[in-house]
Amino acid sequence: MSKKPLILVTNDDGISAPGIRTLISVMNEIGDVVVVAPDSPQSAMGHAITINSTLHCNPIKIDNGPQQEYSCSGTPADCVKLGINEILDRKPDICVSGVNHGSNSSINVIYSGTMSAALEASIEGIPAIGFSLLDYSWKADFKTLKNYIKKITITAINEGIPKGNALNVNFPKLKEKEIKGIKICRQAKAYWVEKFDKRTNPQGKEYYWLTGEFINKDHKKDSDEWALENGYISIVPVKFDMTDHDNIRKISNWKF
Amino acid sequence: MSKKPLILVTNDDGISAPGIRTLISVMNEIGDVVVVAPDSPQSAMGHAITINSTLHCNPIKIDNGPQQEYSCSGTPADCVKLGINEILDRKPDICVSGVNHGSNSSINVIYSGTMSAALEASIEGIPAIGFSLLDYSWKADFKTLKNYIKKITITAINEGIPKGNALNVNFPKLKEKEIKGIKICRQAKAYWVEKFDKRTNPQGKEYYWLTGEFINKDHKKDSDEWALENGYISIVPVKFDMTDHDNIRKISNWKF
Repeated sequence: MSKKPLILVTNDDGISAPGIRTLISVMNEIGDVVVVAPDSPQSAMGHAITINSTLHCNPIKIDNGPQQEYSCSGTPADCVKLGINEILDRKPDICVSGVNHGSNSSINVIYSGTMSAALEASIEGIPAIGFSLLDYSWKADFKTLKNYIKKITITAINEGIPKGNALNVNFPKLKEKEIKGIKICRQAKAYWVEKFDKRTNPQGKEYYWLTGEFINKDHKKDSDEWALENGYISIVPVKFDMTDHDNIRKISNWKF
Repeated sequence: MSKKPLILVTNDDGISAPGIRTLISVMNEIGDVVVVAPDSPQSAMGHAITINSTLHCNPIKIDNGPQQEYSCSGTPADCVKLGINEILDRKPDICVSGVNHGSNSSINVIYSGTMSAALEASIEGIPAIGFSLLDYSWKADFKTLKNYIKKITITAINEGIPKGNALNVNFPKLKEKEIKGIKICRQAKAYWVEKFDKRTNPQGKEYYWLTGEFINKDHKKDSDEWALENGYISIVPVKFDMTDHDNIRKISNWKF
């Protein structure tokens, strides 16, 4: 039996996206790799799962690497559930998701399919990391990240990600030499101001495109946005317990 | 100008679901109501938003109530974004979501479209409550909840939901007289064990249905599952800061 770690790889941009192809090539240097990823882009799917329609999942060969790959009709969270419960013979040692084409820092974590896959793995008791690059382009330079991705993954396997956490790793859009290092951070208190682009279709019916502007007024040094703006890779430990424990007492005093 | 609160109502089961019809009828007793809800069921959509396709949103008249209603092609989070940014003239005083047909307690919060709508409102600075009933049936008895929904909403408006929180309210499947009261709780450490039901379609191709079993080994008295099992309504303050602040220091000591 191989002593190499078993690594489950997924993403939300779809199995043929350059980001996941880079991630697979790095993971092949670390362990035995099984890819279960969406057959089409699933960005901004949040933690959606497929319960009202059927799921398809088929073996696929995309390049000449040693990894096994499966293309799945579902969401990123579906891919992780399928990978762990149907495809793999044993629990993976780690699940990695990405590299996402675009930021998942600060509030973006809540809309992110990349991070929902990582969180789903952590809910199932598997250490998990989501990787994202602050560059939406399909031609983004992922090669420059390879050494950092390898170092972060190996360190996480060796040190042990705290139970109940997944790591949200974001890379600034910089060359490898320009990156100043790694910062462990908290989610910045940033948000989106929506702008709906209202249009009329050829039949005269109105419709909308959702667009928006990212607003960050939280420039403290312990936030992920500060780290990224200042040339660091940000790592935020993200948890799936969404309770605001600090406010339980306050609300307990309400008079119903 | 009316001094009544302006209330945005949405859900994830779709605008015609009995749960939202009950919620609307209660909200009409409290304030001026605008409904922006999905035109079809959006269960388990998590915090998905629609960025790769167009959104439609049209006025609709379903009953004879005084509320304004809009039926939207998007997810629950899309409905809240559209409601706040396009439909309403001013910020609503509160956003209520549900009543969901089925539980959103413990780990279900992370998959829940009902709660993603409430969280989206809280991200936009609007007090928000998601309501769910532990009964998946379309014929569930929502009338029994009306007094409690009214009391909880009015109390939340008067006391003020803490900034950065949305309330996750779950009702046990009991008659009004059997309900013992309200408990402010934390999310129980429960999870789903997936069972994929593998089938073959008439063309001989394999596909899956996602099913699962809910496992709760966390029976402590401060958890939402304990409250619900013991005849109480559970209220969990849920936050959109997903950082595990307690683990930042621990991970900061890792040697990269």
